Amino acid sequence: MNLKIYNSLSGEKEIFKPIHENSVGMYVCGPTVYSNVHLGNVRTFMSFDFIYRSLVHLGYKVRYVRNITDAGHLTDDGDVDNDRFVKQSRLEKLEPMEIVQKYTVDFHKVLEVFNLLPPTIEPTATGHILEQIELTQKLIDKGFAYESNGSVYFDVLEYNKRGLNYGELSHRNIEELFANTRNLDGQNEKKNAPDFALWKAASPAHIMRWNSPWGEGFPGWHLECTAMSTKYLGEKFDIHGGGMDLKFPHHECEVAQGKACNGTEPVNYWMHANMLTMNGQRMSKSTGNYILPMELVSGSNDFFEKPFHPSVVRFNFMQAHYRSVLDISNEAMVASEKGFQRLMEAMKILKNFEFKEVDNSPVNHQSPTINLKSWKEKCYTALNDDFNSPILIAHLFEAVNFIFKLKDGKETISENDLAELKTLMNDFVFDVLGLQNIEENNNAKLDQTLQVLIDLRNQARKSKNFDLSDQIRDRLLAEGIELKDGREGTSYSIS
Amino acid sequence: MNLKIYNSLSGEKEIFKPIHENSVGMYVCGPTVYSNVHLGNVRTFMSFDFIYRSLVHLGYKVRYVRNITDAGHLTDDGDVDNDRFVKQSRLEKLEPMEIVQKYTVDFHKVLEVFNLLPPTIEPTATGHILEQIELTQKLIDKGFAYESNGSVYFDVLEYNKRGLNYGELSHRNIEELFANTRNLDGQNEKKNAPDFALWKAASPAHIMRWNSPWGEGFPGWHLECTAMSTKYLGEKFDIHGGGMDLKFPHHECEVAQGKACNGTEPVNYWMHANMLTMNGQRMSKSTGNYILPMELVSGSNDFFEKPFHPSVVRFNFMQAHYRSVLDISNEAMVASEKGFQRLMEAMKILKNFEFKEVDNSPVNHQSPTINLKSWKEKCYTALNDDFNSPILIAHLFEAVNFIFKLKDGKETISENDLAELKTLMNDFVFDVLGLQNIEENNNAKLDQTLQVLIDLRNQARKSKNFDLSDQIRDRLLAEGIELKDGREGTSYSIS
Repeated sequence: MNLKIYNSLSGEKEIFKPIHENSVGMYVCGPTVYSNVHLGNVRTFMSFDFIYRSLVHLGYKVRYVRNITDAGHLTDDGDVDNDRFVKQSRLEKLEPMEIVQKYTVDFHKVLEVFNLLPPTIEPTATGHILEQIELTQKLIDKGFAYESNGSVYFDVLEYNKRGLNYGELSHRNIEELFANTRNLDGQNEKKNAPDFALWKAASPAHIMRWNSPWGEGFPGWHLECTAMSTKYLGEKFDIHGGGMDLKFPHHECEVAQGKACNGTEPVNYWMHANMLTMNGQRMSKSTGNYILPMELVSGSNDFFEKPFHPSVVRFNFMQAHYRSVLDISNEAMVASEKGFQRLMEAMKILKNFEFKEVDNSPVNHQSPTINLKSWKEKCYTALNDDFNSPILIAHLFEAVNFIFKLKDGKETISENDLAELKTLMNDFVFDVLGLQNIEENNNAKLDQTLQVLIDLRNQARKSKNFDLSDQIRDRLLAEGIELKDGREGTSYSIS
Repeated sequence: MNLKIYNSLSGEKEIFKPIHENSVGMYVCGPTVYSNVHLGNVRTFMSFDFIYRSLVHLGYKVRYVRNITDAGHLTDDGDVDNDRFVKQSRLEKLEPMEIVQKYTVDFHKVLEVFNLLPPTIEPTATGHILEQIELTQKLIDKGFAYESNGSVYFDVLEYNKRGLNYGELSHRNIEELFANTRNLDGQNEKKNAPDFALWKAASPAHIMRWNSPWGEGFPGWHLECTAMSTKYLGEKFDIHGGGMDLKFPHHECEVAQGKACNGTEPVNYWMHANMLTMNGQRMSKSTGNYILPMELVSGSNDFFEKPFHPSVVRFNFMQAHYRSVLDISNEAMVASEKGFQRLMEAMKILKNFEFKEVDNSPVNHQSPTINLKSWKEKCYTALNDDFNSPILIAHLFEAVNFIFKLKDGKETISENDLAELKTLMNDFVFDVLGLQNIEENNNAKLDQTLQVLIDLRNQARKSKNFDLSDQIRDRLLAEGIELKDGREGTSYSIS
């Protein structure tokens, strides 16, 4: 089965051909660590975590590089005082690298909570100053960059003159770019408005600074990704990912830097994850329509009626394709929680389900509602179709329905099919989608202990000792544990 | 009260005077991330975590820098092929930076399990290549270093000629050093055997390499700490810590580099944490007397009869002073577990204890066994006496005994003293020693549910329904939960 990937560069789904057979080099733009990670960023990183897990599951050896931007993220090219780290460090009265450490720790914690795997290399911008200085020098030597007042700029017009087509990724033309560039401080250093900084001279007040052939300064934001991807994946590699908002100018500049330096497109497949909205609106601190990832998990927010387990959030995110806008709302999250619980219940049933010889009652002679071979094929078709998680989940729920019927004796399955179903469901649910079984991880002993109490209560009811059975129910209720009697026996919920 | 710190440089306890009032700059040598972190290293890092927590508790604003050595850790100066990252990357068939990432993630996980706080800055060696090249150049310019075949060495003899006293920290003299240096590969590049590498030329096979004024190469191990401590704490700072095994040559070289560069002792207080042994023997992979930190926690090892919660391990470690050898054994760990449980029980009693007006029964007219004011003073005396955790813990257990008596009505306490005791015990146990209440964090619901079962069993025994009481005991035992009847009532333990 061919893996197809939507390539932002061509605007089409293409068959994926890795540069080296069975290996994938993937670079994803990581966080800028001057504040808490945004929920929208978590979605982006989770999308690429799913893509990474899928590639590994499909048999590729993946070198997955995701950087940490810990320097030089200017809010715009012209204004050195807008360096986000320097600004935040003044605000928090910390050294810039203390800001970096604080928010890097936060970033890693949040991603671990949502069960994202660490990348295989996690380089930092400040860890590659030397490489960035060398790249800048190379671009000057090749005539694609020029020095001005101790800063170095990439010459977009010169790049285009040589037929290299700036704008090819974001599908813009150079005239638009000229027209749309605002006139900002320091712009007079540039030959032309669309030129972008490779290296910026540091003003005396600027605390993050390094020596360079052009005096003390710091690297421009776009250059770090070219430096790190080249170092760890080569001048040309398979996949580059990031949020849609990075397509222009950041990724466009990366393409230009790569082509100017090495004369080749740096990336074969550009992948962009779409936005996250809340209640149909863009999330933004200034409008107040804003929530931190951990606030969604803890329940301390004004938008959701209850806290949601990180795996429920992850399940909700995975129900949208990475290229679609994902809208979160209380209603959608509650629905996801129900779906997630049903999925986990099915996983538990499946885990404990043991093969039994088929009896001869008429129901077992009907053909089963699921054909394992074609079901498996459908799941892999979804995965191979540009990593279509919502379609994959829809197929998993066919299996969920089948599993419930199995349990009720309304379906049968062969011994081999049962073994394969167990393997496939575990692979898709836990390894590929990255969901976690809440109950199993945290509460095995509690579950066993409650089972003892449920059994005692059932005994008491059988022997008509209702004092005892009521006592058990009421004592547990006082502790926030509700027993529920149903046709399937007694279950419980914990508040 | 004056804080006293044992200074390895003077060999004496000295009164601590920070360079900037109320602020502390502290640098601790971090891990070399080419393999899983050693339990002995965990002890070292935990010692400095306790010191960091103590300093913060005592009111200092601490900038705590702990580095990650991710390049250039040669097993000896002469043999470039002994670069540990390059060796391990060949073994694991990974790129060196993948090795770095794998073991950095492991390191952070292990330290989090043992409740170590992250440092305020965590710089990497590869993140400071430029600074190391600049330091090397500065040492050459000042005549303290020389180039040889593309490598640069520190000239120990020249340093001593200028009266700068190489060996002052480890209390060695230069003649010994000449006598004891082995003759190794590449030694012929050096003027004298005790000289050490600042920069090493990379052989063609060496994959971790950077451009420098002396050709492609990589930094020597000792230089990175000087580069990073100078950058984030200044040319002279308050405290430098590390394991005792780093005193020579690593820290000795740092002193020399600092003094040669800046003409001043770089560090006011050198602190060294002592070794960890197991069953009276040095831990070593080659002799088999070796256990990984997580194996102690999971119980999968041949040395301990059961798993130990990370907080029990931490409590055990804290029962030794950081400058004493700490020996771990099954017996000692089981004893620590009992002590830890008693401490946690007291913390629970204290938390729920509410002030009651004193009645007039004779027992309450005795003077209490604890005088809060002098007890508090003793606790702070221990903390201020070179961070004496075992003495502090001994004082905490006086309070534990008092708390149990309070509970039994054999002691009284005033409302104010009760409030202060609660604050102090919480501060010392949780914030300063860094212990965690296992039960509260993980098992509140389980505890409540088991309490219901214990009550039911007691009811059953009262009404001589031994079938039921035995059933409860046996069912729980089958789930690994043992009920234990004692004078204080029934408790349980979970295996």
